[in-house]
Amino acid sequence: MARALLTLTTDFGASGYFTGAMKGVIKSIAPGAEIVDITHEIPPYRIEEAAFIFDRAWRCFPGKTIHVVVVDPGVGTSRRPILVQAAGQSFVAPDNGVLGAILSREKCAVREITAARYFRQPVSQTFHGRDVFAPAAAYLAKGTPAARFGPKIGDAFRPALAAVQRTGKRTWSGCVLQIDRFGNLITSLPAADFARIKENPFELAVGLERVTLFAANYEQAAPGELFAIEGSAGMLEVSVNRGSAAALLKVGTGAPVEITVW
Amino acid sequence: MARALLTLTTDFGASGYFTGAMKGVIKSIAPGAEIVDITHEIPPYRIEEAAFIFDRAWRCFPGKTIHVVVVDPGVGTSRRPILVQAAGQSFVAPDNGVLGAILSREKCAVREITAARYFRQPVSQTFHGRDVFAPAAAYLAKGTPAARFGPKIGDAFRPALAAVQRTGKRTWSGCVLQIDRFGNLITSLPAADFARIKENPFELAVGLERVTLFAANYEQAAPGELFAIEGSAGMLEVSVNRGSAAALLKVGTGAPVEITVW
Amino acid sequence: MARALLTLTTDFGASGYFTGAMKGVIKSIAPGAEIVDITHEIPPYRIEEAAFIFDRAWRCFPGKTIHVVVVDPGVGTSRRPILVQAAGQSFVAPDNGVLGAILSREKCAVREITAARYFRQPVSQTFHGRDVFAPAAAYLAKGTPAARFGPKIGDAFRPALAAVQRTGKRTWSGCVLQIDRFGNLITSLPAADFARIKENPFELAVGLERVTLFAANYEQAAPGELFAIEGSAGMLEVSVNRGSAAALLKVGTGAPVEITVW
Repeated sequence: MARALLTLTTDFGASGYFTGAMKGVIKSIAPGAEIVDITHEIPPYRIEEAAFIFDRAWRCFPGKTIHVVVVDPGVGTSRRPILVQAAGQSFVAPDNGVLGAILSREKCAVREITAARYFRQPVSQTFHGRDVFAPAAAYLAKGTPAARFGPKIGDAFRPALAAVQRTGKRTWSGCVLQIDRFGNLITSLPAADFARIKENPFELAVGLERVTLFAANYEQAAPGELFAIEGSAGMLEVSVNRGSAAALLKVGTGAPVEITVW
Repeated sequence: MARALLTLTTDFGASGYFTGAMKGVIKSIAPGAEIVDITHEIPPYRIEEAAFIFDRAWRCFPGKTIHVVVVDPGVGTSRRPILVQAAGQSFVAPDNGVLGAILSREKCAVREITAARYFRQPVSQTFHGRDVFAPAAAYLAKGTPAARFGPKIGDAFRPALAAVQRTGKRTWSGCVLQIDRFGNLITSLPAADFARIKENPFELAVGLERVTLFAANYEQAAPGELFAIEGSAGMLEVSVNRGSAAALLKVGTGAPVEITVW
Repeated sequence: MARALLTLTTDFGASGYFTGAMKGVIKSIAPGAEIVDITHEIPPYRIEEAAFIFDRAWRCFPGKTIHVVVVDPGVGTSRRPILVQAAGQSFVAPDNGVLGAILSREKCAVREITAARYFRQPVSQTFHGRDVFAPAAAYLAKGTPAARFGPKIGDAFRPALAAVQRTGKRTWSGCVLQIDRFGNLITSLPAADFARIKENPFELAVGLERVTLFAANYEQAAPGELFAIEGSAGMLEVSVNRGSAAALLKVGTGAPVEITVW
């Protein structure tokens, strides 16, 4: 029998006791569970960026995986902890939009986690990763039925997803969703919707620059040249061969982009 | 049967071969052991900070966990490697105070690790994490009795713990023990000892500021406002809603704090 | 039966979805495999540094370990994915020199990975870690015979290893291969070849300084004093007691070093 698989995605960083404490709590409740780190380096409090990054990771995991996602600026307030079941996997997170992509796109069963008997006591006001989310996920891994954690709810927070706006006959606007370690700008423009730019003239405005080259891979552009590429997240990305587009363009997450396709 | 669980806490950082080499040594000796990273981002050589962070993590782990803690500026000198058994768990570390909180607060059996047959040969002068601590922990995980590693000792180094000093009728001084990723200042003032500030006027001096607000959670303060809060480590913390107290106050680990309670 | 052990070494950093996606792909194909992170903090695109760091880690792992090494600036181009079997372990990586030390020093069977049925479809042009290397390693972990992945090749890229050049009767030159978290400079000068410096006068020129002290451990030098030491990678390192040699000397990876021994 395969062991229960449990992933962690947080903005806690790698330096403190936060992630270690969560892992200890999980292993104390469900010694057989296997813990896999997705990332703990979500920029602090950045719910939208966490939602995007996590959405690109969880889809690679097998059925029955239990995901814990804790980016939780509202810890200690009335925001609810939720348990979502969708696509054969389970998700434990605050009800603040961090599971937005799943709630919007998948058929979901959503519960508010209210059963305090599954919490680590006393529950702190500042670290529900350790006291609420990790133990709930661990009990789930141990086989506790979802219904025991709390009632079904129908009003979980579904934020408007970073969308593409049509702003003219040939023009759409979006934004930079994430900047990866190599300085590539991952935009909110789905590559499949803009496949025409592979063969037609286009202009992608970002920062003070206008990108007009589409490249099939990083080496098709000259060193230092900006180009658009179909990224592994399924979005158009802006890159520069052997350099950092983010450093060159001096833009950050959330920066607007505008594309015109002829 | 649950697998042996082994945690790693070091100041090696994530970038070199250090932690990978330790994991390889452990899996070579004890293939069935499960390795969990607590953190490798202890600031270099900061034994006190490591002791504090590790102390908040290990208590969350189940009985029989084996912890390896390597923050070891004295590697290669006469400082001793030790094996501590306390609270049903085991701890392998240099005898430099990094296990100070455990040695001071728990009933401990302490041994000097002298049995070179459990070391990786040749033992380097600069990386006992790979050559001494990881293999000792792995043999322990494999079932080697503690007594085989070396003789009991009674003089392990117990540093004075960062304590609270009473400095006046209504005044106590302490320090900043750790700054977390969000810029919260974790002080050495135990929240339980200062529960009175929840209902009585107080003044907590840190950097050039005086904090006079106690908040039950992060959202009770106005954005940008400094406040004291009971942190998840059981200490008073100084925070600012939706911001970094460390950046605002420009203080670092070790900075003095003084509290007056009326 | 021990579980299949699979390690990851990349330049993806800890912050995005890259490593999480790779882990999900592996667990989807080979649920029983155990994943161990060596490092994801190789500086972007630095193949030589990755080769050095990985070479110091993999030798600590047990037989049958499967290593995935992805530092891959040529992703999406004609550079080949390869599967190397050597020293009882297996290695999956791009054919760009990142496995150079193994290819040069070990008896190897090398195959080009061509069997697209083991790839994640559709294969992106920018993330073969997820779409090619992780799935190939996972199928290998599951027991797929190496021959199924593609044909043997004899021309895998073996870069010239950072070597020591004799530049005079008593003089050799090399370079800084890596700077570790503590600021120690790991040089390409093998400690065993220069054992004479333990007892004879020498001068090691690096940056604007000349190091003339050999220390057996970090504490033998006065605080702030530069010295050479035999490092845990088997190379001469330049260190400063309780400080960062890299910060003091203001040199980086690749900086030349020259040693004269009398």
